[in-house]
Amino acid sequence: MHEETDWPRVRFERLQAELTALGEIGRDEKRGLYRMAFTDADMEARDWLCERIREAGLLDSRDGAANVSARLTPPDDRPALLIGSHIDTVPNAGIFDGSLGVLIGLECLRRIAEEKIETRWPVELISFSDEEGRFGGMFGSQAVAGMLNPEIIHNARDLDGVTLTEAMAGHGLVAMDALNARRDPRAIAAYLELHIEQGPVLDAKGVPIGVVENITGLFKWSARLIGTPNHAGTTPMEMRHDPFAGLAEFTGEIPRILEENGSDLARATIGRVELLPGAANTIPGEVTFSLDVSDTDPEKLEELHDAFRRTLSVIARRRTLMFDFEILSRIEPVRCDPRVVEAVEKGSARLGIGSLRMPSGAAHDAQILAQLAPMGMVFVPSIGGVSHSPAEWTSWQDIEHGANVVLQTVIELANNPDFATQPTRAGLTTS
Amino acid sequence: MHEETDWPRVRFERLQAELTALGEIGRDEKRGLYRMAFTDADMEARDWLCERIREAGLLDSRDGAANVSARLTPPDDRPALLIGSHIDTVPNAGIFDGSLGVLIGLECLRRIAEEKIETRWPVELISFSDEEGRFGGMFGSQAVAGMLNPEIIHNARDLDGVTLTEAMAGHGLVAMDALNARRDPRAIAAYLELHIEQGPVLDAKGVPIGVVENITGLFKWSARLIGTPNHAGTTPMEMRHDPFAGLAEFTGEIPRILEENGSDLARATIGRVELLPGAANTIPGEVTFSLDVSDTDPEKLEELHDAFRRTLSVIARRRTLMFDFEILSRIEPVRCDPRVVEAVEKGSARLGIGSLRMPSGAAHDAQILAQLAPMGMVFVPSIGGVSHSPAEWTSWQDIEHGANVVLQTVIELANNPDFATQPTRAGLTTS
Repeated sequence: MHEETDWPRVRFERLQAELTALGEIGRDEKRGLYRMAFTDADMEARDWLCERIREAGLLDSRDGAANVSARLTPPDDRPALLIGSHIDTVPNAGIFDGSLGVLIGLECLRRIAEEKIETRWPVELISFSDEEGRFGGMFGSQAVAGMLNPEIIHNARDLDGVTLTEAMAGHGLVAMDALNARRDPRAIAAYLELHIEQGPVLDAKGVPIGVVENITGLFKWSARLIGTPNHAGTTPMEMRHDPFAGLAEFTGEIPRILEENGSDLARATIGRVELLPGAANTIPGEVTFSLDVSDTDPEKLEELHDAFRRTLSVIARRRTLMFDFEILSRIEPVRCDPRVVEAVEKGSARLGIGSLRMPSGAAHDAQILAQLAPMGMVFVPSIGGVSHSPAEWTSWQDIEHGANVVLQTVIELANNPDFATQPTRAGLTTS
Repeated sequence: MHEETDWPRVRFERLQAELTALGEIGRDEKRGLYRMAFTDADMEARDWLCERIREAGLLDSRDGAANVSARLTPPDDRPALLIGSHIDTVPNAGIFDGSLGVLIGLECLRRIAEEKIETRWPVELISFSDEEGRFGGMFGSQAVAGMLNPEIIHNARDLDGVTLTEAMAGHGLVAMDALNARRDPRAIAAYLELHIEQGPVLDAKGVPIGVVENITGLFKWSARLIGTPNHAGTTPMEMRHDPFAGLAEFTGEIPRILEENGSDLARATIGRVELLPGAANTIPGEVTFSLDVSDTDPEKLEELHDAFRRTLSVIARRRTLMFDFEILSRIEPVRCDPRVVEAVEKGSARLGIGSLRMPSGAAHDAQILAQLAPMGMVFVPSIGGVSHSPAEWTSWQDIEHGANVVLQTVIELANNPDFATQPTRAGLTTS
């Protein structure tokens, strides 16, 4: 094994300056970043990124979904190691969510070029369009994975009713061209993404690197308990059918249900609650609430679904309430490739940087790419677990650690002969 | 004691026709009654009521608060037995809330006149303005009790910002004249009010008459639990400070707190809950909720207040949440006069109509009048406990029973020498 000092490092001042510069594009003076997909700010950021790519002597390109790529050499027959993330933001965002993975990827390519490091597989940086969901989310990565179709593209619109087609046309882009962004899985050796954790674990434990083992699956309900609205002062306690009392009991059962049915990583949240009629002196007649449950184990997730349904049903029956629920979404958990997990871990160890295996509780483009190729993710700490907020922050030291670990991992993965050919996945034809 | 058949009865067809006719004034074709105080419909109903009074050969009058009165004879030195309620409604109302007490009172006066029944104390019907609260509620009875002042009258406005002064001026009335409606407590022998129960007890037990023993006091909080908003997927369960989980635990403690600290009639309701930010995939950072607690025992009500505060505080501390609460209102419980309670009970027994002693969980003008004179209330069943809704209903038979019980009680009370003079209450000067 090489000595620690033998390994190349990122040039941190350059990376820091770029993160700061990109963090000014789309900035509202008072309220953080507004760089939602296909806004002027988002397009300005793409142009800025392409300039940085060319400035580094790399080749920039954009596909039909407006995903921006950077390569050291033109595409050839070999499967490429993709590293990437996104530069679009939610409204009122911080500067690192997505951008960190893209600019660290760019710095890795630059260092490989500068140090003239030979790799078995070509390395490509990719910045995916609309990860954050102005038009639904994961647009660019879904385009690459061949998950889009004309109907999806035609119907995509933002909360103001602007269609994706209109928004892209406003910048001279044709939305249907996203269908051409599909890639042959055999052309992708592996995918690696660095992202801020967006949770409190690394920060609380003081560990700089999270080695993602799996991305959690989830199900999301909109559920309702229906009782009888009545006068709060005149209705005796024993004659009430109070759906909020039922919801409170259900909420109290969450820890037990997770312990009995979920893995150690199971989580459940009630984030939205609405009472009808919602007056202080009226016993509510109806309560609508969201239930968001995630776990990394597909079987446990299924068991959790059954357990939550059973508990809600029992509580409703005992309290003479009606209940119903609608499944708003259901996403299967995804495992990171063990070879990528090990490469990240080895890279951290080589640099003497502490790391921790952990799940990703948030969804990422990596979840989509896992359908095409071996996938892995690296997390860096989010201070206080905050994200999707101008208060989002990661220390510059942690960013430097993360960038160097990615550089290590990229060099290792790009030389791993295991990734030579990828099997064609079901449902994806080769071109 | 007289034979049952000796006692005068109301003329039910007449009463029923009047209830039906008044129930058309302010009716929206699809959505029930809209006869809020000092609207055109409310003024039309006052005029209609005055016509009915004059039609019966009685004397109608209006005081400075626009309370409508009916008397058999002009006022004299003797204290009067007041019977009354209100004819204004909430929006989207049924036809009995308030109107039933007023029209039964009118029928009682008519029967006393028709039967030439002599009474020791003159009987007066009074219909109070704005009981339901377009401008705050209990306006007319508070005017009679001398609880108003120029500032209160000046500041009173409805939810649309219309001032009481403007609304009354629109009908040629001067709001400040309400200050002249104050009465000397010595001029009131006693006050009796019939009202629909607005709760499910009489209907569920199949008893036609509720003999109100006391009107519950209450306190109303707007309370807040503040935690840390976080990503639902990325924040481990043990690292959460979820204020909704805290509220659920608090809600689960309500039955225990009532049992340990309240009387058998203690009630507590959480009717309004708001979560911030209120997104399915975000652990809420803040939850605001109402707590409405009532009891008939003033000491128990005080103990309940302490117990709820203590429990909220303990839950907040254990879960590392902050909490605060604002006391929105606090009303002391009021006892009905035992002589009135007995008179109602005797009247029911005399007619062979079942009765049940019970509390009033809702507030009424009677609660205000209790500050001036011995007070009592009669309840008739609300089917399913429903009120403040076009679905509000009481069977015609129960209404007839209620009317006859009131007639019995009025004759009895108006001849009771005990009510000869009333002590002057503290804070009320005599005129």
